[in-house]
Amino acid sequence: MAKATLVSLAESLGVSRQTISNVINAPHRVKPETRLRVQSAIEQSGYRPSAAGRQLRTRRSMNLGIRMMPVVDGINGSILDRFLHALTEAAQQDGYRLTLFCADSDADEIGQYEELLNVADLDGFVLTGTHYGDDRTAWLLDNDVPFAAFGRPWSSIEDPFTSRHAWVDVDGGAGTEQATRLLIEQGHTSIGFLGWPVGSGAGDDRRAGWRRAMHHARLATKGLDIQADDGVAAGALGAERLVEAGATAVVCASDSLALGAAAKLRQLLPEQKTPVVIGFDDTPVAAAVGLSSVAQPIEDAARHIIAVLTHHLSGGRDGGDKPRKHLLLEPTLTQRTPYSFSSI
Amino acid sequence: MAKATLVSLAESLGVSRQTISNVINAPHRVKPETRLRVQSAIEQSGYRPSAAGRQLRTRRSMNLGIRMMPVVDGINGSILDRFLHALTEAAQQDGYRLTLFCADSDADEIGQYEELLNVADLDGFVLTGTHYGDDRTAWLLDNDVPFAAFGRPWSSIEDPFTSRHAWVDVDGGAGTEQATRLLIEQGHTSIGFLGWPVGSGAGDDRRAGWRRAMHHARLATKGLDIQADDGVAAGALGAERLVEAGATAVVCASDSLALGAAAKLRQLLPEQKTPVVIGFDDTPVAAAVGLSSVAQPIEDAARHIIAVLTHHLSGGRDGGDKPRKHLLLEPTLTQRTPYSFSSI
Repeated sequence: MAKATLVSLAESLGVSRQTISNVINAPHRVKPETRLRVQSAIEQSGYRPSAAGRQLRTRRSMNLGIRMMPVVDGINGSILDRFLHALTEAAQQDGYRLTLFCADSDADEIGQYEELLNVADLDGFVLTGTHYGDDRTAWLLDNDVPFAAFGRPWSSIEDPFTSRHAWVDVDGGAGTEQATRLLIEQGHTSIGFLGWPVGSGAGDDRRAGWRRAMHHARLATKGLDIQADDGVAAGALGAERLVEAGATAVVCASDSLALGAAAKLRQLLPEQKTPVVIGFDDTPVAAAVGLSSVAQPIEDAARHIIAVLTHHLSGGRDGGDKPRKHLLLEPTLTQRTPYSFSSI
Repeated sequence: MAKATLVSLAESLGVSRQTISNVINAPHRVKPETRLRVQSAIEQSGYRPSAAGRQLRTRRSMNLGIRMMPVVDGINGSILDRFLHALTEAAQQDGYRLTLFCADSDADEIGQYEELLNVADLDGFVLTGTHYGDDRTAWLLDNDVPFAAFGRPWSSIEDPFTSRHAWVDVDGGAGTEQATRLLIEQGHTSIGFLGWPVGSGAGDDRRAGWRRAMHHARLATKGLDIQADDGVAAGALGAERLVEAGATAVVCASDSLALGAAAKLRQLLPEQKTPVVIGFDDTPVAAAVGLSSVAQPIEDAARHIIAVLTHHLSGGRDGGDKPRKHLLLEPTLTQRTPYSFSSI
């Protein structure tokens, strides 16, 4: 369909573009006779003032950007899908859309911010995967760009609750602490932790939760702390080392690691009948194989991120209460009885 | 940061806005002296012509819309994540972004199209979940809106390869046919099909593939065709009925159904040592429990959808070959040896 434009409409009516603009935006400035004639023509023509026209007045696109993080082994893909879905829904309720983009690195992500701000006039961003020395938050703060992060700012010196930027996070350490305590209550005294290499904020936080529970119960941790890249194969290898060190149970930083660890423990410790591996993220894979796992309230996190961001973008004039700028949500532990999947 | 605008720049330079616009868009129209002065001021001011300004000239947002389909049981979430990631990446390479939206129904989705076209000036859409009597494709065609569908048009009378709109699909029936043949080669003569209620295009197509393989091998299908809503529990129930009807193996329309069916068959037919359930979509769950599954080339599908859409949007002037308007991709069968996951 050939859309009626401001130009074509002005030509056919023999009025100026400014007059048409006034009829739409400041009708009191236009003589009633002209106003009625233009309004009627607008209705008949199907002309709708475009976003572009409105953006020139308000400089707002009602669009928020979010980077699609790379697909790793797919196990966490369903969590990202839930997060993105909840973000989209919450944003839409507040009149915003999400714009997706890809980036190879933080530096590339910053380059994308610049382009999205300058070319697409995005209003703000949702950040994920915050980490130590995060250049992205620094850049966004320096450039006064509205954003909210899923993930607290990781710093050894700064208290995240005094951070200059908004964030929502889940208390992963509380989750692994709870998981470790459960295993201690079940009678385990040698519980290993299988997590990512030291230096990732979320990973170190999950490790610290395991360590707190072990120290609290006065249990030794020597040799029971394994650093591994994420993945099922790495989980199996790590579990092998933990069993050699005497572990009878394992708390993991992810369900991918847990899946590999569970298969390995089943093989090395076949006499154990109770679940002895606990994962993180409560993915469909954990549900499928009957793996207990720490569950993040991912939809709550998404909704709060949008609330904080849109409240800020409205200049506080959205009529709602001011959402907390820094919010740490509690995870829960999903306990499962293992299914039997041999010989499917 | 206070952005320099067209207005502020024109005022500070004492030139008209049209002059600045000409310097950017039609520099040959501006006297060299003025041009240099304006260009230098533009550089110093950090002024960048906004998307809004460009949109008024070209009426293009370089944005494509896609509806986030509802999260069901999460097992398929990782596939959607892969699809969305591949779409975003391919679109970005062609200079487009993806805009996400939610909708409760097809009618709601059409309402969103209208809003996204009129308010956000979207250039086109990617459709998923095509089905019989799809109002969405009809509306988009009637309104001459560029789009491409992941999913062929389902109709009992129309040949999808003569469809007026672009689509990419995976030949699901070829996948279930291949799966059924594998089970026949393994010696099974009573193979059940566990799929969605008749009336969904993709579901009926997968059912037809199973039926073709059974007929080709002159095997009976009576009582072996079960219709169930998607999900693990429904899969277990359906498998129970299939075993009662004499089935020793099951081909499923999804990994969710297959997961439930596998657990049930393991319980009812413990003497079987070989894999006897084959799923669809090759999700991480299938990989985790050692379930064979039909794998869709989801990244290829996403890339072709973007290619077809951006080629069309460029008016064929993108310099590339014209991508096929209708493309049916072949799935592959991922065969797995089942892991043993009892007593994790």
